[in-house]
Amino acid sequence: MTAVWKIYYDYYFLVQLLIWLHFLTNVCQAWLPDSGSKLVNNLKQISSIKFTGNLTHPDYFIVLSQNEHSILLGGRNKVYNLSIYDFNERIQSRIEWPSSEDHSQLCILKGKTEDDCQNYIRILYKPVPGKLVMCGTNSYKPLCRRYVETLNGHYKIEDQFEGIGICPYNPDHNSTTVFSDNQLYSATVADFSGGDPIIYRYPQRTEQLDLKQLNAPNFVSSVPYGEHIYFFYRETAVEYMNCGKIIYSRVARVCKNDKGGPHPPRDRWTSFLKARLNCSVPGEYPFYFDEIQSTSEIINGSYGDSGIQNVIYSALTTPNNAIGGSAICVYKMNDIIGAFQGSFKHQESLNSNWLALSDSMVPKPRPGKCVSDSRLLPERNVNFIKTHSLMEEAVPVHFGQPILIRVSLQYRFTTLTVDPQVRTTDNEAFDILYIGTDDGRVLKVVNIPNGEAAKAVVISENDVLPREIPIKQIKLTSESGRIVVVSRDEVRLVALAHCKSISSCSECVDLQDPHCGWDAKQKACVPMNKVTTRRYIIQDIRQGDKSKCSWTPPTDKFQFGNPSSTREAEVPPNSDKDEDLYPSVNVEDVSDCGNDIDRCAVKQKIAGEPQTLHLIIVAACIGALIVGFLSGFFFSKRFRSSGPYHDAPFFEQHNHLERLNGNQTFSAPRPNKTVNLVLNVRSPTPPLKKDNLDVTKDLNIASDGTLQKIKKTYI
Amino acid sequence: MTAVWKIYYDYYFLVQLLIWLHFLTNVCQAWLPDSGSKLVNNLKQISSIKFTGNLTHPDYFIVLSQNEHSILLGGRNKVYNLSIYDFNERIQSRIEWPSSEDHSQLCILKGKTEDDCQNYIRILYKPVPGKLVMCGTNSYKPLCRRYVETLNGHYKIEDQFEGIGICPYNPDHNSTTVFSDNQLYSATVADFSGGDPIIYRYPQRTEQLDLKQLNAPNFVSSVPYGEHIYFFYRETAVEYMNCGKIIYSRVARVCKNDKGGPHPPRDRWTSFLKARLNCSVPGEYPFYFDEIQSTSEIINGSYGDSGIQNVIYSALTTPNNAIGGSAICVYKMNDIIGAFQGSFKHQESLNSNWLALSDSMVPKPRPGKCVSDSRLLPERNVNFIKTHSLMEEAVPVHFGQPILIRVSLQYRFTTLTVDPQVRTTDNEAFDILYIGTDDGRVLKVVNIPNGEAAKAVVISENDVLPREIPIKQIKLTSESGRIVVVSRDEVRLVALAHCKSISSCSECVDLQDPHCGWDAKQKACVPMNKVTTRRYIIQDIRQGDKSKCSWTPPTDKFQFGNPSSTREAEVPPNSDKDEDLYPSVNVEDVSDCGNDIDRCAVKQKIAGEPQTLHLIIVAACIGALIVGFLSGFFFSKRFRSSGPYHDAPFFEQHNHLERLNGNQTFSAPRPNKTVNLVLNVRSPTPPLKKDNLDVTKDLNIASDGTLQKIKKTYI
Repeated sequence: MTAVWKIYYDYYFLVQLLIWLHFLTNVCQAWLPDSGSKLVNNLKQISSIKFTGNLTHPDYFIVLSQNEHSILLGGRNKVYNLSIYDFNERIQSRIEWPSSEDHSQLCILKGKTEDDCQNYIRILYKPVPGKLVMCGTNSYKPLCRRYVETLNGHYKIEDQFEGIGICPYNPDHNSTTVFSDNQLYSATVADFSGGDPIIYRYPQRTEQLDLKQLNAPNFVSSVPYGEHIYFFYRETAVEYMNCGKIIYSRVARVCKNDKGGPHPPRDRWTSFLKARLNCSVPGEYPFYFDEIQSTSEIINGSYGDSGIQNVIYSALTTPNNAIGGSAICVYKMNDIIGAFQGSFKHQESLNSNWLALSDSMVPKPRPGKCVSDSRLLPERNVNFIKTHSLMEEAVPVHFGQPILIRVSLQYRFTTLTVDPQVRTTDNEAFDILYIGTDDGRVLKVVNIPNGEAAKAVVISENDVLPREIPIKQIKLTSESGRIVVVSRDEVRLVALAHCKSISSCSECVDLQDPHCGWDAKQKACVPMNKVTTRRYIIQDIRQGDKSKCSWTPPTDKFQFGNPSSTREAEVPPNSDKDEDLYPSVNVEDVSDCGNDIDRCAVKQKIAGEPQTLHLIIVAACIGALIVGFLSGFFFSKRFRSSGPYHDAPFFEQHNHLERLNGNQTFSAPRPNKTVNLVLNVRSPTPPLKKDNLDVTKDLNIASDGTLQKIKKTYI
Repeated sequence: MTAVWKIYYDYYFLVQLLIWLHFLTNVCQAWLPDSGSKLVNNLKQISSIKFTGNLTHPDYFIVLSQNEHSILLGGRNKVYNLSIYDFNERIQSRIEWPSSEDHSQLCILKGKTEDDCQNYIRILYKPVPGKLVMCGTNSYKPLCRRYVETLNGHYKIEDQFEGIGICPYNPDHNSTTVFSDNQLYSATVADFSGGDPIIYRYPQRTEQLDLKQLNAPNFVSSVPYGEHIYFFYRETAVEYMNCGKIIYSRVARVCKNDKGGPHPPRDRWTSFLKARLNCSVPGEYPFYFDEIQSTSEIINGSYGDSGIQNVIYSALTTPNNAIGGSAICVYKMNDIIGAFQGSFKHQESLNSNWLALSDSMVPKPRPGKCVSDSRLLPERNVNFIKTHSLMEEAVPVHFGQPILIRVSLQYRFTTLTVDPQVRTTDNEAFDILYIGTDDGRVLKVVNIPNGEAAKAVVISENDVLPREIPIKQIKLTSESGRIVVVSRDEVRLVALAHCKSISSCSECVDLQDPHCGWDAKQKACVPMNKVTTRRYIIQDIRQGDKSKCSWTPPTDKFQFGNPSSTREAEVPPNSDKDEDLYPSVNVEDVSDCGNDIDRCAVKQKIAGEPQTLHLIIVAACIGALIVGFLSGFFFSKRFRSSGPYHDAPFFEQHNHLERLNGNQTFSAPRPNKTVNLVLNVRSPTPPLKKDNLDVTKDLNIASDGTLQKIKKTYI
């Protein structure tokens, strides 16, 4: 009788537990993967060095260019050259270029403010070695200057030319440029009022004031890929007109070798096409994040079942007037190309719906295809593409849905940058994303592909700037975990390598940060770029499985018998070469900055206060899982106790730790002295971290976002 | 020198304060007025009595009808008659009506479950005194029965007829019926699979399978108004087809005297028109809450500058797959009528946009206008309305935007009911809303119109049912603050009069609950329906201004000199007549329920735990305002201290308290014994609370929502 009661009691307990777990999962399983952040650091806990420009007036800072040692920062009438190690300005390399008195006066006369009537440098590129071109807003009269390098390594003005169509009038305008194959491509506005959007490369441009081509666009980024230049932007959707007013995200492209149409003046593109970017949560009624805010560079990486792919990460949001939601969507370049090979959208008459055009109606050669000489194209082709620049199909989102969604009344994503394919001890590679928000936060996120899907884990959420300051740009530095965060009037060098603040193995593994690993020998959470041998490192980026901490490191004499030593051989011997490029600067080095309190850093710690709610939910979920698991175990054991296997172990020990060959060294010491760029000019530039695109390196700016690495920058 | 420092110091303090305030306002000023709730009560803090039906199988409860003393509750094979005072069932009045064995068997054969193959009673109306009609799903073969009253007050089956087109097949289907002018209007589905939506009154119906008329609708409510019957529902929007798939909220109407078209069979409406309901936050890109979930009855009330209006409250949400957002929108009946008097939407051809049709193309008499005999209408009119049932303009939202918006990952609004025009001591009248959610919450909300706008204040947020249970219906009882909350398998009688749990004047006034007032003589927060004289009552529904608590009540001998006694005269002597209808049952009475723990109630208290975050923000905002105000005062005083007016008082004392004539008594005792409905049958029903519509009283059910009061119910 007692036994029956016991079984009943156990059963009752289990049912209660299941109900409780069901409730918890219901709470946790909302489609919005607005998971908490593993670490939350407030402003005081973030180690950073700041550069504040003129301090009194708006600077509209923008990182124009960057190499291993320096960043070139465009601001108000100046370009600053900052050491990337400590943000010391190399004052002798500063270039000053204020507007002329005439231009300033005219600007004021046109009703602009004194702050508007300055020269904000927006563009910098290097057409040939020894030459430099810079463009600025020049008091709402965009102007470019060519500089030539002098013998002493300084630059001298050679000449100047009008910057209309290249550089925006308003320093805050969302524009983008990219220099590729000796040509500058720009996407900006070509008039004072900002009403004439343009995608331009001398002499071709988009049709003027044609809403079917560009309809109040906000350009986000531009990137060369293959024989095309791709532009990412958001604009009012012309195909939606009958249903209201909405902004869609777009990718557009032009052929690099477009020479214009058959009739002079040959100043219009013959290859301009665009497609919608679909970033949505699937369902009978999909939910869209329609406003693209930023993209990464093109990343070449390996993503679960989809294998090695060229992808582009993008941050998209809901509209300004909607409930605040942000998402990270990934697009395969192959899918983008696929959309441009599909049907064209066609509107029969002004009041007709936009429908797919049947293939038989498309002239040959297919409009938008790059031809050797577009001036020889039949008239019909050129006319067709003018009225059919929109593709029918949207570019589908890779992994089927956004990899990260955040819902917040406080913030939206503004920008992102990607540290691509950071390798783990398992020789897996994960992309680390740094995402900026409009309230001064930076999220450090790792994308974990799994089969055909992917899920991002937020490693840390960091208040890098005060809450009222939107983040405009994020740039990587050569050291892992250190980034440059750009706002309008302030630039910060921030260390987001959290390893040192963590004291236990379980926290270190749970963090899922590819930059950190638990050193089982030293008993410390160590930055991976300082690791000399990976054989003692415990990491689990995929699961954050703390049980791996139960593994004990082999003593040296038993090293040969290490059960995972077989996997060491799988690691290519030069797989860590990338990391050699990162000089070993760590958080302590950054905070070693003299008596300047403002510049000094407080080491970050695990902070719970502001997001306790999230933490509580996550903790409750984890707790529930553990309790569920244990009670399941208990329950199962009770029922099996009379069976033949009751002594069999229930838990299997998983020690999937990989150890690498101890012969390799990973850290190269960083130069003790900050390198002066002026002195450095004539020396060959050190090799930049390789990305796998076989396109020419180029420069690409967007006032709110991405700037691609320029291969060589001399000043 | 010291003075200069002092000024500097003050100035610095003020600037810091302003920065802080600016930050706080930024946080608080997100367009989403997702303000916290003044009180948060969890399940244990809510005083309620529950009725659980069969306990083992789904009941699909629905309140079919209600009078002052009883509710009739439709369930599985039964109609329950519950006392509204204590939820005691009058078992002798229970009507049992299971499906016949044949119908059950057939239903099972068709592949339905045993739970589906029951008779769920959905409709009950009284065509003439002494008769009763009930309809049920009857094992997926809808059936209605006529009952006739016998001499002993029971009801006897007279005959039965098919209920197809009247009653849904599926007990969970969103259907609605309304009985008006001796006719039953229904909106449901007319086939087994649920694919044939219908708006029906014998013999007219909507066109079968015509997506332009009804496209997968979910009916929410129906209401007679003037010479029309109005139906509220959501459906897939046909005019949006080219832009994707979306659900819109609609209001449709038919003429009561529609007799069908000129050709027999005269079984199609000649007056069916529909319009979109616009519930949106304005902006260049408005944000829409597109899915209507529930409406109130038509309320006649006074709303700020818009004066006396007939309005209808509605709860709308974002789509299921979107970020969870809910809103309360108010529509003026005049605006609804206005939309039906505007242009028709017209689609030229299958692939054309839906555009406004020019007036010259509209036949005369205007289609949709009620004519004395629709059978005499020209052919052209009848054909026109079949293809042009959609109006061009949407019904605009009253007050310009939703009065309440909630954003939550946990819940959406499902239903609402309105306690109309509750009077305050100032003789103002406010509507109190009870809003149910899909996670067992009920929000008690007061709508505070101000000028041309309005803003709802959430008085309390109450966990009435466990988190996993959606609330389907809320009904008022005759006592203020007590409501009937209906879920699928459980009905609760809940007391949401919070006065007694409050101990201080400031809390009582801050609550802004028209049901509560601070009695300055008794020093207690008292329910207004128990107040015998209003002269000592402090209330401030509009502002919740606690400073009113500084008013001290006049002693009786100085009563004549009371400064606000002049306002007493403004109060019409019978302004509290409405309240006489509410018997004075209070929370204690409810909880006086014997030894049955489940039925007993725990008194609610001010609870902070689950929503501390909201409370902290609200408290911070209020704190900041007070500190800002005081420091502004301090600062201003410092600078004025040498001026001529430095002795002038800064604060004006506002004592806008109104006191009513003490001669009136407001509470009528409730009958000591619960009234047995069977005994009550032949006695004239007591007068119901009057609403100001001059339309016949009727019955109106929706499976997820509103049921209008029936004037007389005999069983």
